[in-house]
Amino acid sequence: MTAEVPRELLGSNDIAGLERWLAEHAPYEIADELARAEEVEAVLLFRLLDKDRALTVFEELDPVDQHKVLSGLRDRAFRDVVEGMDPDDRARLLGEAPAKFARHVLAGLSPRERGLTAALLGYPEHTVGRYMSPETVAVRHRFTADEALGVVRQRGPDAETVYTLPVIDERRCFLGTVSLRDLVLSPPDLPVAEIADGFTPRVRATDDVEEAARLMQDANLLALPVVDSEDRVLGLLTIDDALEVIEAADTEDFARQSAATPWTGHYMSASVVALARSRALWLLLLIVAATLTVNVLQFFESTLERITALALFIPLLVGTGGNAGAQAATAAVRALAVGEVRTRDVPRVAWRECRVGLLLGAMLAVVGLVIGTVIVEFTVAASVAVSLVLVCAWAATIGATMPLLARWVGIDPAVISAPLVTTLVDATGLVIYFLVARFVFGL
Amino acid sequence: MTAEVPRELLGSNDIAGLERWLAEHAPYEIADELARAEEVEAVLLFRLLDKDRALTVFEELDPVDQHKVLSGLRDRAFRDVVEGMDPDDRARLLGEAPAKFARHVLAGLSPRERGLTAALLGYPEHTVGRYMSPETVAVRHRFTADEALGVVRQRGPDAETVYTLPVIDERRCFLGTVSLRDLVLSPPDLPVAEIADGFTPRVRATDDVEEAARLMQDANLLALPVVDSEDRVLGLLTIDDALEVIEAADTEDFARQSAATPWTGHYMSASVVALARSRALWLLLLIVAATLTVNVLQFFESTLERITALALFIPLLVGTGGNAGAQAATAAVRALAVGEVRTRDVPRVAWRECRVGLLLGAMLAVVGLVIGTVIVEFTVAASVAVSLVLVCAWAATIGATMPLLARWVGIDPAVISAPLVTTLVDATGLVIYFLVARFVFGL
Repeated sequence: MTAEVPRELLGSNDIAGLERWLAEHAPYEIADELARAEEVEAVLLFRLLDKDRALTVFEELDPVDQHKVLSGLRDRAFRDVVEGMDPDDRARLLGEAPAKFARHVLAGLSPRERGLTAALLGYPEHTVGRYMSPETVAVRHRFTADEALGVVRQRGPDAETVYTLPVIDERRCFLGTVSLRDLVLSPPDLPVAEIADGFTPRVRATDDVEEAARLMQDANLLALPVVDSEDRVLGLLTIDDALEVIEAADTEDFARQSAATPWTGHYMSASVVALARSRALWLLLLIVAATLTVNVLQFFESTLERITALALFIPLLVGTGGNAGAQAATAAVRALAVGEVRTRDVPRVAWRECRVGLLLGAMLAVVGLVIGTVIVEFTVAASVAVSLVLVCAWAATIGATMPLLARWVGIDPAVISAPLVTTLVDATGLVIYFLVARFVFGL
Repeated sequence: MTAEVPRELLGSNDIAGLERWLAEHAPYEIADELARAEEVEAVLLFRLLDKDRALTVFEELDPVDQHKVLSGLRDRAFRDVVEGMDPDDRARLLGEAPAKFARHVLAGLSPRERGLTAALLGYPEHTVGRYMSPETVAVRHRFTADEALGVVRQRGPDAETVYTLPVIDERRCFLGTVSLRDLVLSPPDLPVAEIADGFTPRVRATDDVEEAARLMQDANLLALPVVDSEDRVLGLLTIDDALEVIEAADTEDFARQSAATPWTGHYMSASVVALARSRALWLLLLIVAATLTVNVLQFFESTLERITALALFIPLLVGTGGNAGAQAATAAVRALAVGEVRTRDVPRVAWRECRVGLLLGAMLAVVGLVIGTVIVEFTVAASVAVSLVLVCAWAATIGATMPLLARWVGIDPAVISAPLVTTLVDATGLVIYFLVARFVFGL
C-alpha cells in the first residue's frame, strides 16, 4: 500500500534523489521504509531528514526500529532525538533496550525529561504506567468552559492530547472527563461540572495495559484517564498507544496459536536464527508429547499387525480430530481475548462444544464411511466412522475448555495453541480408534 | 472486567432493582450486557433506559445485537432509535439485516436521514463508503483559525467528529487536514493553509475498508478523509469505526486460521448449529483432502506390512510437519495482515523459511533419533530423523509461501489456514517418510 524507496537510489547513494523521495512522502511511509531497511540504509535515510521531520518519523517507529536508527546516530543528533521524544515512547524504548544503552540515553537527557521518563520506568512492564502520557491537561470541576479552554491554550502545547481532559477536584482526584469538543461547543460560562462525563472509566497505573486498551475499544474512548491508588490523576492512555498494544497482543496471540513464541520486531528483518528460536521450544515440547502417540500405537501393535488396513486411516483420523480441536480452541481463545467469554462459562462452553463436535462428527462419519468402504472395506470403515464421532466431540470439548481453564489458573489462554490441542487429541484419538476397532472386529 | 446484571433481578422482574443497576453503569457496560442477554431480556433492559441514554447504549452495540434489540421494540420507540442513529451505523445495520427489515426502517426515517443512509448503502460492502461519516465539518483553506473555529461551533453539533477537519478549496477538493487542537492553540488570525497538514492520506469511498483502517493505524490518525473520484471530500472514516473493522478482520483471520468460516455475532449467543455450520465446510474439504493420506499409505502398504514399526511414528512425523507448517503459515498471514510482507517478497520468504525449517528439522531429528532408538530400533529411528529434517524444511517453505501466493492471485491469505497446511503436509510428508525408509532399509 505504501510506496517503496527505489533500490537504485540507495544503491547509488543518490542523495538528491533520496531527499526528493523523502520530501514527497508522509512520515508514516518513511517510517515503514526505515523499519524494512537494513541498519546502514535506515540511518542514511534518517540523517537526510530535517530535525522536526526526523522526530515525527522517529515517533512512528517501533522500539526495535528506534533502537536500530539510534545506534547509528552521532552524539548531537542522538541527543536531539531522544530529548524530543514523548516520555511514554522513551520509557518503552528504554524498557526494551539493553541496560547500557538505557543509561547512556538517560544521562543525556535534561533533568525534567529524565524525571518524567524515570517515573514511567518505575512501573512494571505490561502495565498502564509504562504506556501513559504524563503530560496531561487536567481541569478543575469549578471552572467554566471558557476558563477550561484557557487552560488548554496555556498547557496544551506540551500535552500529548487535549481532546480528553480529566476533570479533577481540589485534591487532584478524578471526577470524570470533559471533551475538547464539548468545551468548544458549550456556552462559555457553563461550569465544566455540568458538561463532564462522570461515566468515563479510569484505570490504575499498575493495571494490565492490554485490558485497559481493550476497555478503550469497548467504551469507544480516545483517551483513558490513569490514576494512582488514591484516585489522583497521573496521566492518560491515548488511543494510538492502545492500538499498538492491541496490535502487538493480537500478533502475539496469532504466534501463540501456532505454537510459536512471540518475538518483537518486523518479520522481514528478523534473522533466520531468531525465527527458528521463536518456534523451537514449542516444537520440542510437542515432539516429546507426540511420543505418547508412539506408545499408544505400540500398545495396540498386535491389533495393527492383524489388521494393517487400520493404519491407513491413522493420519486422516488424527488429522480430523486435530482440526476440530483447533477450531474450537481458536474460537475460545479469541472469545476470551475480546471479552465475550469469561472463565466461569466453562460448563456452558463445554456442553455447547460437545454438541457442536457430535454434530460435526456425525457429518464427517458419513463421509468417512463412504471413503473407507470404497478404499478398503466396511468393517474398517465402520471403525473409522464411529471413531470420528467420538474424536470430534472430544476434541471440540477439550479444545474449547482448555483455554478457559488456562485463564482460570492464570496462564495466558493463547498458550493453548492449535498444535498443542492437536498433539493431545492425536494420542487420545488413537486410543479411541483402536478401542472402537477392537470392539467392531470382536477382538 | 465489566459488571454483570444480577440474574435474580432479571428472573424476578425487579424493575426498580434493574433501573438502579442501569443508572450505576456506563453505556458500554450496559451494551455488553445486552449483547450477552437473550432477546427478551435485552429488550426488557433496553426499554428501561431513558431516551438519550438508550441511544448512546444502542450505538455501542454490534449490528447483530442492534437488530436483536430493535426486533422487540414497538413502533414509536423503534422510530426514535433508528432516527437518532449516525448514518454510517444505520447503513451498516441495514446492510446486514434482512431486506424486509431494512425497508421498514428506511420507510420510517425523515427524508434527510433517509437520503444520507441511502447514499452510504449505495457503496458496496467492505468499502470505506459504508463506514464513513458523511456529516463532516470541512474548512476552506483561506479561512483564519478563528473563522474555522466559528465553522466548528456552527456545524459541530451534527458532526460525528470535529477533531480532524478536512481542508478544502473552492471546488470542495481535498487539500489536507487541520486538527482542532492546532486551531485552538494557534493565533486566531493565522490562515488555515499555514497550519494544515498536507501529508494526511485520503482514501476513496470505494476503497477497501480494512486497508483504510490499517492505514489509519499506521499513520496514527483519529480520522481519515474520504474523497470521490474527483478528490472532493465526502466524509471521514473515524477511529472507532476503523477499530471495529480491524477487530472484526482479526477475529475473521483467527477463525480462518483454524479453518472455520467467520461468523458475525457473539460467541456465547451463537447457536450450536451456527457454530457447527461455521466449521463444517472446511472440515469436509479437509477430510476429503486427507483421503490423499490413505492413498499414499495404501501405495506403500507392502513396505508397511514388512516393517510395521514404521506405522508407530506416522502420527509423530505428520504431526510435527504439520506444526512446523502451521507456525510458518500463521507468521506469514499475520505479517501480510499488518503490512510487513508484500507479495513480491515470495522468493525471499521461501528461502528464509526453508533455512528456518532445516534448522528446526535438524534439532528435532536429534530428538527423533533418540526417541526412535529407545522405543524401537536404530534403522526405523534413522528413517524418522532424516524425514523430520526434510519434512520440516518442506512444511515451513510451503506454509509461508502459500498465503503470499494466495494474496497474489487475489484470495484472502487467511484462507490458507494452519489445518489446510497441515493436511497438505500430511500427505507429502508420508511420501517423504516412506521413500526415506525404503532407502534406509534398502528396499
